[in-house]
Amino acid sequence: MKLPVFEDVKRATRRIHGFAVPTPLLSPPVINELTGATVYLKPENLQRTGSFKFRGAYNALSLLDDEARAAGIVAVSSGNHGQGIAEAARLLGIHATVIMPSDAPAMKIERVRRLGAAVELYDRVTGDREALARELVETTGATFIHPFNHPDVIAGQGTVGLEIARDLQAMEETPDHVFVCTGGGGLTAGVALSVLEVFAQVRVHTCEPEGFDDYRRSLESGRIEQNLRRDGSVCDAIITPSPGEISFEINRNRLAEGMVVTDREAMDAVAFAFRELKLVLEPGGAVGLAALLKSGKQFSGETIVVVLSGGNIDPELMLKALGGQK
Amino acid sequence: MKLPVFEDVKRATRRIHGFAVPTPLLSPPVINELTGATVYLKPENLQRTGSFKFRGAYNALSLLDDEARAAGIVAVSSGNHGQGIAEAARLLGIHATVIMPSDAPAMKIERVRRLGAAVELYDRVTGDREALARELVETTGATFIHPFNHPDVIAGQGTVGLEIARDLQAMEETPDHVFVCTGGGGLTAGVALSVLEVFAQVRVHTCEPEGFDDYRRSLESGRIEQNLRRDGSVCDAIITPSPGEISFEINRNRLAEGMVVTDREAMDAVAFAFRELKLVLEPGGAVGLAALLKSGKQFSGETIVVVLSGGNIDPELMLKALGGQK
Repeated sequence: MKLPVFEDVKRATRRIHGFAVPTPLLSPPVINELTGATVYLKPENLQRTGSFKFRGAYNALSLLDDEARAAGIVAVSSGNHGQGIAEAARLLGIHATVIMPSDAPAMKIERVRRLGAAVELYDRVTGDREALARELVETTGATFIHPFNHPDVIAGQGTVGLEIARDLQAMEETPDHVFVCTGGGGLTAGVALSVLEVFAQVRVHTCEPEGFDDYRRSLESGRIEQNLRRDGSVCDAIITPSPGEISFEINRNRLAEGMVVTDREAMDAVAFAFRELKLVLEPGGAVGLAALLKSGKQFSGETIVVVLSGGNIDPELMLKALGGQK
Repeated sequence: MKLPVFEDVKRATRRIHGFAVPTPLLSPPVINELTGATVYLKPENLQRTGSFKFRGAYNALSLLDDEARAAGIVAVSSGNHGQGIAEAARLLGIHATVIMPSDAPAMKIERVRRLGAAVELYDRVTGDREALARELVETTGATFIHPFNHPDVIAGQGTVGLEIARDLQAMEETPDHVFVCTGGGGLTAGVALSVLEVFAQVRVHTCEPEGFDDYRRSLESGRIEQNLRRDGSVCDAIITPSPGEISFEINRNRLAEGMVVTDREAMDAVAFAFRELKLVLEPGGAVGLAALLKSGKQFSGETIVVVLSGGNIDPELMLKALGGQK
């Protein structure tokens, strides 16, 4: 198992330059007042394709040699990795097939298609996406790009953390905590790798929806734990069955305790972002914000970074979120 | 008539520091591809209170002496200036009364109240907000803070332009055009003042909704023209009856030709911002973006800055915008 290191993140930063956009750090007064903390948001919903996933996808695809590029690539994705892959493939002139659950948000499926990738749908509960992917790889010679259990993908996501670290250094700020929305843990691992390299004492926290807190439990037990369910959360982007092996190897000795929020708290954070921050977030991209909002004044006086990991939400779900909060 | 100059904008920048947030410049690949231009968005929807208005309000209020602060202030506003005023007054410990049209978006009225200001409603068509304001000023000794026809307000809005200019200089970019959403012209005047100081050849354009293009017509005729209607656009934030005298004096020799978009184009731009940019915009804050989007490839090869001036939209109107565009 090849583990990415900080150098790989730095190389990825150079590789994605001019393709991924560097997202800013935002520090909205309304959140600072609410929490008593100095809060910096890293809005990866503003990233190309609406989530951080483009970073890892582009980094991984740009490392393929000519032969591999000609044979095309295969990805499995609930939508954000798929969009990242489709866009990276489009820019690099690579044919991409994305295997997506049939209950993925319509917007995500449509956008993967619009970016030029072929889409194959499967049933999230009864289907076996790994088998589908294997078959495609065997019959076409395509390269499989895992959404998180892949060193180049993790190194690419790590550029989120490196941008955070460099921007904080420029402002002479030292973070106490970083909250990261966590599915398979690729983003979290990349962020932990790079932020801890610069700020050795910072506490990086996974943030997950209730019932899908495999990462929190795995960190606690010291081994990879599974979720009992495979669906049933609005946070479709991050309900992976268990931590990836590579991300867990990176994270196990680096992370602080994990945080868990309910679907309702995630939806309230989506509504808060719409009303107060003027940012469009999807529930899975808002769990870090939800974890901060539910903490009240617990982090008062501290400096907190929250990664807002994605904004690909169907209008209907946004309406539901907004209806639930006055 | 006292006209603000570039020095006043620089002073305002120092005055609002730590209260207004410096907003980033965003350059989403999706817009660059669509237009063939290098586009920079200035998202003032991410400003404190959800629009640029806080800048001018805070600058003006912080210049009041102790006696004036004690007597309180009065403002008329369709909502964004009111929120800016209410928030600035809250931070400075000043009592504020905001006179608002009864058809202003519910969210705006509620937010002005929540920030601690007293709200008085009037009918936009039959009421006389100036008379109401005059009466309050006479009976209470409060200071009237005009939403745009006020040198300190214009200087404050000019900080938007100064941030744009400094960020572009840091990236060694030279803008060809700047698109500004225009109501009474305070923001446009402030932006023109500061951007033209740094980039003498840039063309600054007013952007207005159809039927409310008083500024475009005034620039053409060389004198202040009125709108025929006083209501009937979704762009509630920018349907002022005519250019302000001060802003027009600044703008008349500085601006390029004005641009006009339909309400539908403004709403489509709101939907585009939601789906593609993950930003929440109100129609009045999206007319600049709408003007760019409707121009197709007209500005291909050029560098364009678009000010996104506000994001205070009711969820119902956002839903309407999203329903209108697949």
